[in-house]
Amino acid sequence: MKNEKITSRDIDFAKWYTDVVNAAKLASYTSVKGCIAILPNGYAIWEKMQNELDKKFKELGHVNVQMPLLIPEGLFNKEKELVEGFAPEVAWVTIGGSKELEERLCIRPTSETVFCDFYKNYVKSYKDLPLLYNQWCNVLRWEKETRPFLRSREFLWQEGHTIHSTKEEAEKETKKMIEVYKWFHHEILAIPSIIGLKTEKEKFAGAEYTYTNEALMFNGVSLQCGTSHYFGQKFSKSYDIKFTNKNNKEEYAYQTSWGTATRMIGAVIMVHGDDKGLVLPPKIAPKQVVIIPIGNEEEIMKTCENISENLNKNGITTYIDLTEKSPGFKFAEAEVKGIPIRIEVGKRDLENDNITFVRRDTSEKITININEDLVEFTNNLLRKIQNDMYNKALRRRDELTFEAHNLNEVKKIMEKTPGFIKACWCGDEECEQKMKEIKGLKSRCIIENEKLIDEKCVVCGKQAKNLIVWGIQY
Amino acid sequence: MKNEKITSRDIDFAKWYTDVVNAAKLASYTSVKGCIAILPNGYAIWEKMQNELDKKFKELGHVNVQMPLLIPEGLFNKEKELVEGFAPEVAWVTIGGSKELEERLCIRPTSETVFCDFYKNYVKSYKDLPLLYNQWCNVLRWEKETRPFLRSREFLWQEGHTIHSTKEEAEKETKKMIEVYKWFHHEILAIPSIIGLKTEKEKFAGAEYTYTNEALMFNGVSLQCGTSHYFGQKFSKSYDIKFTNKNNKEEYAYQTSWGTATRMIGAVIMVHGDDKGLVLPPKIAPKQVVIIPIGNEEEIMKTCENISENLNKNGITTYIDLTEKSPGFKFAEAEVKGIPIRIEVGKRDLENDNITFVRRDTSEKITININEDLVEFTNNLLRKIQNDMYNKALRRRDELTFEAHNLNEVKKIMEKTPGFIKACWCGDEECEQKMKEIKGLKSRCIIENEKLIDEKCVVCGKQAKNLIVWGIQY
Repeated sequence: MKNEKITSRDIDFAKWYTDVVNAAKLASYTSVKGCIAILPNGYAIWEKMQNELDKKFKELGHVNVQMPLLIPEGLFNKEKELVEGFAPEVAWVTIGGSKELEERLCIRPTSETVFCDFYKNYVKSYKDLPLLYNQWCNVLRWEKETRPFLRSREFLWQEGHTIHSTKEEAEKETKKMIEVYKWFHHEILAIPSIIGLKTEKEKFAGAEYTYTNEALMFNGVSLQCGTSHYFGQKFSKSYDIKFTNKNNKEEYAYQTSWGTATRMIGAVIMVHGDDKGLVLPPKIAPKQVVIIPIGNEEEIMKTCENISENLNKNGITTYIDLTEKSPGFKFAEAEVKGIPIRIEVGKRDLENDNITFVRRDTSEKITININEDLVEFTNNLLRKIQNDMYNKALRRRDELTFEAHNLNEVKKIMEKTPGFIKACWCGDEECEQKMKEIKGLKSRCIIENEKLIDEKCVVCGKQAKNLIVWGIQY
Repeated sequence: MKNEKITSRDIDFAKWYTDVVNAAKLASYTSVKGCIAILPNGYAIWEKMQNELDKKFKELGHVNVQMPLLIPEGLFNKEKELVEGFAPEVAWVTIGGSKELEERLCIRPTSETVFCDFYKNYVKSYKDLPLLYNQWCNVLRWEKETRPFLRSREFLWQEGHTIHSTKEEAEKETKKMIEVYKWFHHEILAIPSIIGLKTEKEKFAGAEYTYTNEALMFNGVSLQCGTSHYFGQKFSKSYDIKFTNKNNKEEYAYQTSWGTATRMIGAVIMVHGDDKGLVLPPKIAPKQVVIIPIGNEEEIMKTCENISENLNKNGITTYIDLTEKSPGFKFAEAEVKGIPIRIEVGKRDLENDNITFVRRDTSEKITININEDLVEFTNNLLRKIQNDMYNKALRRRDELTFEAHNLNEVKKIMEKTPGFIKACWCGDEECEQKMKEIKGLKSRCIIENEKLIDEKCVVCGKQAKNLIVWGIQY
């Protein structure tokens, strides 16, 4: 494991990413093209993410359900924009139980259609509303280019699908859920992100509007990390979902959907990782502390056990590395897996009643007396690591966030390094298209609540309408 | 909701079952034939089940992973017996991304082949073993006859797939996991079950042997509730999974698999339910207590809130029914959902400082003084309900467990009522076939550690080899 040759991040970022995924045993390729196996180290991170999000969803009144994996073609085709958006990338089941099917079934790329079909039969009156449903499941999109976690044909995600009796309530839900994703990134993943509206061109197929949560990776490439869509009555009209309102009149319902995925594991790798491997924020680290005995004297082993028991008992997840490898090998292994804190227990230290803490994020060594309150010390250190990781990521993002006032400036920035580019826009799709010609720049989102930095569009020079964050994307 | 007409269990059990599923809003049919939507009330029960099992699996050293949904045909076909067992009931994806696929992909009916494919590349040395992997996922089997939870084309389950360097260790794992399912049924679901080996005819396709956990439903029909398979080296030979053993020689690995599914929700309904609806064992009830105010005076509402806060704070899941329905309607609604305890808070009671507890399982009413230790009282009552439900189910099973010494006795029993029939068997498949002619009786399992009740086979009269529990199945 030691130095299972991780390419340097600065030399080849794409190769570095794949090396980290392999060396940390997060995922593995499989015999199905474009589909990965999520291995224990990767899946345990996903479980931590799920726990945090699921708890928050439930606090906000959401409940979990499970809708079918398969969607009949006729049902799938009812909402035109959605079909156009997804049809090219779905997989079709045409044979079931040795027989050709009369109607083929697609594997869900997303489940708006299925929820609509359910709501159509289930919702009768405003008294039945709102329904705040979410599901944790797998979806499939027939991507051409794939990368572990970032873009794979099958992936795991959660998709919330809510239905309301008023426009106001549905819009409030849309906004609330994008704020949840922002909270999740900032507080749990230690990843600063920007939220804002997608442009017409970039919004979800079938949505009236889409909020997005955009993060910047270490190499300056953007990653869309969770979106929240307001559908208004578009789907309810296509799927005929009506309810009797308070005035005893029939009305089409108002809907939203929102989702985030195992892609977040990719974000954590690319924002926090370094040349030694993964670096996990303590809040999603399946194991927060590894204890490594230097030597195998009884006193050392006993001390390791006492520390482990004490920390575990107090809610800090800990394990002792008891394998027969050398300490140096064990250090490297814990580093590649991104474990936030390493505790070294050695003979010389113990003679002075000392043990050594090593931070994964900074490599800082801290020697402390074993008779101190280790639980308090560790908890404080975990909190500090979590905060420092956020701040470090924020500094990196700020370094890579630029302003541009004309196309020349945009080009100059992109020649040096990609990043977030703030620039004003007239609202015209043609100008978006022209930006795309510069290394594939796309509008990531429209920034609200911030002053325009120009009166004119960065492309055409006409009256600016929005301040946009532009970037290239995964 | 009140009496959403649940057919009496004694009049039409099948109809009663469907009525309970609908009235308790556990699941709903969908536009995909044979696939259900699991609704919030049903899914919350599944989440409770998952939590209990997942915790236990992890305590025993298992880790979770996620393997792909799709299996290439060539890979699927490698283990002959497995293919023969499952091929008739798989669904095939033949088109992906608008193109006909070169090799069609089946949707996993079970994932032995996928795990084998992974292990083949991953396992090199005995030092890599054992791998104790489990996954929570959806699977698909193209069943002809379906019923919510009991048998549906898509269902949710967990499948453990472990791989070991010795036969002994793998066999120990197989046994350990069937004991886990038994523990789960007895301790958590309050369902008595029998474990034993499947006969050659009934074992899992590709297994050397299969342990099963068999439960008896209220109507005397058996339900297979979790199985654990020992594969020996059968799969490792088909998939070429070799490792270097301690003697530095290549050896085929030893494997197991074990699984249980959302079918367990069906078992809970059919073992514990009654004519008023679902009856949930407290350990898997998403809400253990409902508090119903009788009247809306301030004192009543305040008391409800105090009780709710106090119980919730102490880990008892509770809610107050604040809807505008009548108390009688609320009672019925809580009953149909199977909530273990109902607390009624009314004016007259409160004048004497009393409140009333009503048990869902027995309808017993208990009036107690509000100044008693309500947390302790409720916890004790929940424990008592859990135990009483188990004992009641055990009595029912014992009532419906018979012994038969010849075919005439078997027939007589089956004319009256189905159930578990204990009878001896020579080991010959033909005799199993003859039993099947009696209303579809199948061997449920071979009972170990119990004396044979006859020297002769119940069918052919030859030397008996095993004591078998026979039954008809869902």
